Amino acid sequence: MKIKHLAGAAALLPLAACSNKAVQQQPNIVFFLVDDFGWVDSSVQYGEELYPYNLRFNTPNMQRLSERSTVFGNAYACAVSTPTRTSIMTGMNAAHTRITNWTSAVRDTPSDATGGGFWMAEHKGSGDAAEGDVLSRPEWNMNGISPVPGVPYTQYANSLVQYLKDAGYFTIHVGKAHWASAGTPGVNAYNHGFCVNIAGTMAGMPRDYSGLKNYGNTKERWNDFAVQNLVEYYGTDTHLTDALTSEALKALDYPIRHNQPFYLYMASYATHTPIQPDERFAQKYRDAGMDEGQAAYASLVEGVDASLGRLLDFLDEKGIADNTIIIFMTDNGGNSENAQKGGVPHTQNKPLREGKGSNYEGGIRVPLMICYPGKTQVGRCGVPVICEDMFPTILDMAGVRSWTAVQDVDGQSILPLVTGVGDGPSPERPLVFHYPHKWKPYDLEDIDFLSAVRVGDWKLVYRIKEGVVACNERLYPDTRNTARAKALELYNLREDIGEEHNVAAEHPDITQRLAKTLSDKLRGWNATMPIVVSTGKPAPLPDEL
Amino acid sequence: MKIKHLAGAAALLPLAACSNKAVQQQPNIVFFLVDDFGWVDSSVQYGEELYPYNLRFNTPNMQRLSERSTVFGNAYACAVSTPTRTSIMTGMNAAHTRITNWTSAVRDTPSDATGGGFWMAEHKGSGDAAEGDVLSRPEWNMNGISPVPGVPYTQYANSLVQYLKDAGYFTIHVGKAHWASAGTPGVNAYNHGFCVNIAGTMAGMPRDYSGLKNYGNTKERWNDFAVQNLVEYYGTDTHLTDALTSEALKALDYPIRHNQPFYLYMASYATHTPIQPDERFAQKYRDAGMDEGQAAYASLVEGVDASLGRLLDFLDEKGIADNTIIIFMTDNGGNSENAQKGGVPHTQNKPLREGKGSNYEGGIRVPLMICYPGKTQVGRCGVPVICEDMFPTILDMAGVRSWTAVQDVDGQSILPLVTGVGDGPSPERPLVFHYPHKWKPYDLEDIDFLSAVRVGDWKLVYRIKEGVVACNERLYPDTRNTARAKALELYNLREDIGEEHNVAAEHPDITQRLAKTLSDKLRGWNATMPIVVSTGKPAPLPDEL
Repeated sequence: MKIKHLAGAAALLPLAACSNKAVQQQPNIVFFLVDDFGWVDSSVQYGEELYPYNLRFNTPNMQRLSERSTVFGNAYACAVSTPTRTSIMTGMNAAHTRITNWTSAVRDTPSDATGGGFWMAEHKGSGDAAEGDVLSRPEWNMNGISPVPGVPYTQYANSLVQYLKDAGYFTIHVGKAHWASAGTPGVNAYNHGFCVNIAGTMAGMPRDYSGLKNYGNTKERWNDFAVQNLVEYYGTDTHLTDALTSEALKALDYPIRHNQPFYLYMASYATHTPIQPDERFAQKYRDAGMDEGQAAYASLVEGVDASLGRLLDFLDEKGIADNTIIIFMTDNGGNSENAQKGGVPHTQNKPLREGKGSNYEGGIRVPLMICYPGKTQVGRCGVPVICEDMFPTILDMAGVRSWTAVQDVDGQSILPLVTGVGDGPSPERPLVFHYPHKWKPYDLEDIDFLSAVRVGDWKLVYRIKEGVVACNERLYPDTRNTARAKALELYNLREDIGEEHNVAAEHPDITQRLAKTLSDKLRGWNATMPIVVSTGKPAPLPDEL
Repeated sequence: MKIKHLAGAAALLPLAACSNKAVQQQPNIVFFLVDDFGWVDSSVQYGEELYPYNLRFNTPNMQRLSERSTVFGNAYACAVSTPTRTSIMTGMNAAHTRITNWTSAVRDTPSDATGGGFWMAEHKGSGDAAEGDVLSRPEWNMNGISPVPGVPYTQYANSLVQYLKDAGYFTIHVGKAHWASAGTPGVNAYNHGFCVNIAGTMAGMPRDYSGLKNYGNTKERWNDFAVQNLVEYYGTDTHLTDALTSEALKALDYPIRHNQPFYLYMASYATHTPIQPDERFAQKYRDAGMDEGQAAYASLVEGVDASLGRLLDFLDEKGIADNTIIIFMTDNGGNSENAQKGGVPHTQNKPLREGKGSNYEGGIRVPLMICYPGKTQVGRCGVPVICEDMFPTILDMAGVRSWTAVQDVDGQSILPLVTGVGDGPSPERPLVFHYPHKWKPYDLEDIDFLSAVRVGDWKLVYRIKEGVVACNERLYPDTRNTARAKALELYNLREDIGEEHNVAAEHPDITQRLAKTLSDKLRGWNATMPIVVSTGKPAPLPDEL
């Protein structure tokens, strides 16, 4: 669906966004986006019940926000960072942008781990298949999004932020950007319509969280992952999360002083690796018996909570909390695959299966709460929603209803689910997840090469590698049927949130219907599929098995 | 000459540059680089006498600095911005880097005006020849410098700043960078070894000098020329030059607090176009009878002077002036070709001929003074020096004598000329200037396609277009001789600083010697020449006429 609203209100908007005074009518919007922060990694109850892991975290400010918010229990993002962040900016599903993996630091360099890829060759891997690989990397938009056409391996799109700026918003970027590779125009926040950019680069992680280490700024020759724009905190014990918060509050001074609506995209680098303890908070977690990795992670989380708290207090002090919408979300599920986090790998998102990188729930089901002062239906909302919904939702909040984009927008406004006014998306709307990549240099069966679709309570997981096996025509029919059964898994998420019981055999009709739905979506978007090494052709879609 | 100093002191340096405390021994270094600021655009006397234009400017702080400096009367830069800035970073002559023109905002887009070029096609011109053109653009390194190999149209080089950082310096970039086009790694100051970057991008000019205009940050879609990192001054009447100065002083806090030597590259955007009045200072110039352009320009100059004053005061207050070297310089001659500056075009650098863009003295002879507290020979120095000398000079100042670079360094340390200790470059050293480009969409006879060499008091100017005519074999010998005479001009700068009297006919031997010197240099560097449209071959070198 190509959305075009050409006429009307836009012509009446003030001429300059960042420089003119205007009487403020539009609400301020804060998008507070945390990184690698899982669904059970706070005291906030997103699920039907409070889970044991919820009890490990001390997050009073998230709790405080949740008590005035619509809390989404079935909110989704992509399995890794960049696809979510670019979906928010474009309103497109990641399979549609063809940005299905994270953008690496260096232009034209795939981050795929197939054939060693990025991981083995120090930022210059091909990502092609190695000996023994069944699948090789797809042709995806490895350079991310671009605000101008013609840049190789990018999705050209009009950004959410530019529309907000055009509509009179003062637009502020703080923290992690990670929309594009260095050496492309998309890496520059200003090119997407931000009036201010603090510390947003091509980096997907900080080199160091400590001000005492200058956030990683050491004498190395190529040091892109050192966090920029924070010299005032160098040599002090200011944690990165806190420094970014201070800078965000400083940047808010201009629009508040000028009575201009603002959009603050507050994208914390925490809680991404490196999992370094935030010593303001770490000791009590150690004292509670956590191992060092667990304590360090919990302290990073509490640092984010403190950041949120400072922001909420600031809005109160300035007397603008009543006109400021807050969206709190994460870019993907918690990382359950990194030894730095301590604990037992692949369990940290329990009751959800797996974590970051995976299209099982642990990788994609994320915290989301929205507070629209005076209009919020406070409480839990179970309707499934997804990151590309943020584009139309935020434009809806800003009153920007007259726009035309070069891209086809897939998301829908979920504002009606917050306010109770109007129609939100249907609970039966299919939501698509697509990760046609190998994530790490070693095989991760529940992460690599998975696609999925959720429709209502049902979820189909397509294991692409098994799909390739099932399409081998030289197999005996029985063997092929076994492979096909392994390729398509069906779960009822209402009854089985942990995706422990594959019920595809019991519900072949539902399995077939969802396989068709997923295939139609991917086909319609010309989604990219990994390449079958033995044939050189794209892997089959799930309805081609 | 490939300089390699492999052994010795480097191994003893502290391990981290930006993060470790150390007892300071090395001097701090401030490189104060002004933009488009001419040789006679201040009250400082660089020449043998004070010229009428010197009297138009009120620059007490430059005066104050000159009284404790070695003031160079025969200092040179390139005719336009990027070549000078990249020569400072690499130590190479611009003909050698093949970065002989300014880098445009957009990768792979030549800024040449041949065939319309950049100027006619809104950032996407080819720079190829149009009908009637004798010359087409050369194959130059239009993307600037790169800290990594393999980037098309760049000079790969180790930067001056990286060596300083490696040697323990805290390295700060403030203001205009303009080393490389957007979309290449060279555009990022951090990639060249800066610990801090404030406002340095691919931009060669600011969109606006006024804080009230947010330094150009308006709602336009592609707004790279808006100055970044200055949100704290948005909506205030803080002039850009003053805002950058405040940020520089803030950034100095860290190294001062940690007793770490610093390198501050303070690269003012002023006095480049747009020539907008700095209202702190403009009125008195209007009252003195200057036209609006002249008054606006003089006010930009006084803003730079005030910036220098704040910095000098700050160093005094912090008690570190005695250990801080200051280099004051400009990137090219004053612009005499832009109506914004008022006055009579092509005269603003009198007594020097022409201005920015030209290899006549007005375009390349620049202010340079160096103050090394306790070691300076105060007074004028007449030895000709050039921008690529800054690389070895600054390393010499920092005590970095053990380094190896991927590039061949052409410059020589001029520190002995400041301190009187050791041997500086010979006054007879040849200095080469090379501009194989058409600057503007219209013809500028004294700017376009000129090369030059200075040896002692003599200067040869090679007019490449005339050289092409002289090589046309179908001409009669007399006609060819006339063309040859027009192609090679000789001046004695001691007697004729205004280059009014071409004495090539009187001194054929000197003319021939300098033509050979210039040709040998260009040949040795594999310098790029414009293409003769009628033959498709490079234009001849001056000894090939």
